Amino acid sequence: MAEVRGSGTAGGELAAISRIAHSCGPAPEGELWIGDDAAVVKPPQGHLLLAADAVVEGVHADLSLVGLDDFGWKALASNVSDIAAMGGVALHALCCVAGPPETDLDLLYEGIAAAAEAYGVAVVGGDLANSPTLVVAVSVTGTTGGGNPVRRGGAQPGDHVFVTGPLGSSAAGLRLLRGEAGTGGPSPPDVDRNRSGSDLGPIRPEWALPLIQAHRRPAARPVEGRAAREAGANAMIDVSDGLASELAHICTASGTGVTLDQVPVAPGASVEDALGGGEDYELLFTAADAGLVRAEFERQDLREPLALGRVTSAVGELLLDGRPLGRTGFEHRWLR
Amino acid sequence: MAEVRGSGTAGGELAAISRIAHSCGPAPEGELWIGDDAAVVKPPQGHLLLAADAVVEGVHADLSLVGLDDFGWKALASNVSDIAAMGGVALHALCCVAGPPETDLDLLYEGIAAAAEAYGVAVVGGDLANSPTLVVAVSVTGTTGGGNPVRRGGAQPGDHVFVTGPLGSSAAGLRLLRGEAGTGGPSPPDVDRNRSGSDLGPIRPEWALPLIQAHRRPAARPVEGRAAREAGANAMIDVSDGLASELAHICTASGTGVTLDQVPVAPGASVEDALGGGEDYELLFTAADAGLVRAEFERQDLREPLALGRVTSAVGELLLDGRPLGRTGFEHRWLR
Repeated sequence: MAEVRGSGTAGGELAAISRIAHSCGPAPEGELWIGDDAAVVKPPQGHLLLAADAVVEGVHADLSLVGLDDFGWKALASNVSDIAAMGGVALHALCCVAGPPETDLDLLYEGIAAAAEAYGVAVVGGDLANSPTLVVAVSVTGTTGGGNPVRRGGAQPGDHVFVTGPLGSSAAGLRLLRGEAGTGGPSPPDVDRNRSGSDLGPIRPEWALPLIQAHRRPAARPVEGRAAREAGANAMIDVSDGLASELAHICTASGTGVTLDQVPVAPGASVEDALGGGEDYELLFTAADAGLVRAEFERQDLREPLALGRVTSAVGELLLDGRPLGRTGFEHRWLR
Repeated sequence: MAEVRGSGTAGGELAAISRIAHSCGPAPEGELWIGDDAAVVKPPQGHLLLAADAVVEGVHADLSLVGLDDFGWKALASNVSDIAAMGGVALHALCCVAGPPETDLDLLYEGIAAAAEAYGVAVVGGDLANSPTLVVAVSVTGTTGGGNPVRRGGAQPGDHVFVTGPLGSSAAGLRLLRGEAGTGGPSPPDVDRNRSGSDLGPIRPEWALPLIQAHRRPAARPVEGRAAREAGANAMIDVSDGLASELAHICTASGTGVTLDQVPVAPGASVEDALGGGEDYELLFTAADAGLVRAEFERQDLREPLALGRVTSAVGELLLDGRPLGRTGFEHRWLR
């Protein structure tokens, strides 16, 4: 990649690098992608956005439940999502793959290449290394064109709080893959996506596939992120650790609170999934003018973002229907 | 960092991120470093260079012999070296750290920060994740200012082959740390750095510290890389896998051969260390005008680069004193 030099790998890495370079396509005139010490690309106009994210086997994905291609997809998509959360689009990716020699690199790169194609990202470099644990660390460049990136810390009291879609799909999909759901439960789930969910009961067949897909190949939202920026978003973050945790990040960075009047739960997911499940990659943002947001999303033919509540001046206070919400994906308690 | 978001880590990561952000210093006006979804920086003028390299515990470093700070240093310095090998300087780094929860992140980042300071790199983002194996994957941006990056594939028959310093120090230093050298051997080593070495015998005390230092904190050569570029280098690569392997890369990419009349061995190292030891980060380059190279290095007060031989038109043929040289760090045989 910049190289993809195969430091510390056993034999075969040169062949793998050659296949990777081939799957990533040729560099345009004046650029240099995979095959040297560093890649050479044209910098974007305006700001240069930079992000990096690592996925670890057994931590971010259970490779007995999802494929190596899904793992590769996730590694790249999570980075595209970080750039999307600034209102930007990703341009270039560098992929460091550290894993056991028997790792099926072709399958892994199939997923990376699929995500790269889906989001218009050029994989221009990286590294291959031996490791007993498979770790894929991707970094990306990105740009907002001429626009100002949307930070976490810009929320203003009175702002409307939006999310680009219902939450909890990935976590519910993981449970389905584990065989933990759909085996009967106390009651059918509440299917109103705009209201809180309930304990997970039997999963309706028509929900199962989208939930599993959401876990295997979570969709980043760069188009929605740009639309939110263009509609005047003051603060934005991607929901990678659950709604509660991301709201807390925005409030901490902005010196505000948030009061919610609903938690948007994906069909078949639970409220816990939405609040603490994470890995959904929907975008959470705040904006002063709700009408402008809806108009911009409609103009761009995007799904209408869900309005969850308002930003308040009560620093760090997260309320749902007037009651406190746990602060993190791992620490939250559902008090309903 | 861009974030440093701590995906999948146990508690304590927010505190670690805060310390990391503090150790990396504040972003200049108009930029945004650690603490959001992505970092926001000013792109360089001209080309944007991108490189990534991962170091893995037990593969690239034995943590019973070197410190976590050394491990961090190496992770960043290896990337600076990749940019240097294009004739560029590194600007920004993103550091993904995947490791066990008990990893001493402060010590690791002490080494990363030391290298960042030494090479003028801003650590602007990254990620923290749980992993049973410690993997540090760093990516960097860089620039050559207005100049053209030096590729691997530009060597021309007749070019002089240079290296910025004698080789094999890191490998010899590793042996010293393992207690494998300095315990007596067949004969004292040949100390003429410009001639081939010999079997490693007793290490003179004055060599031991530089060799160990070279293994623990290998020095990248961005200043030398820029000087080589400015002196008309046609091809360049950093010696991360041993001289034989890097020569083969240049020859393959350039469609040339190389004939050497010497192997520059560091005092206390062996010829095998120089040919196949790797991790020295000296720069190997070819240039048409040897006088211009020497004059430029002298003008910049740099150590005179060592002339090893010439580039030939015999595609893929690597000769030393007329005899074939093994092709890779792992496969080479010493035929002297």
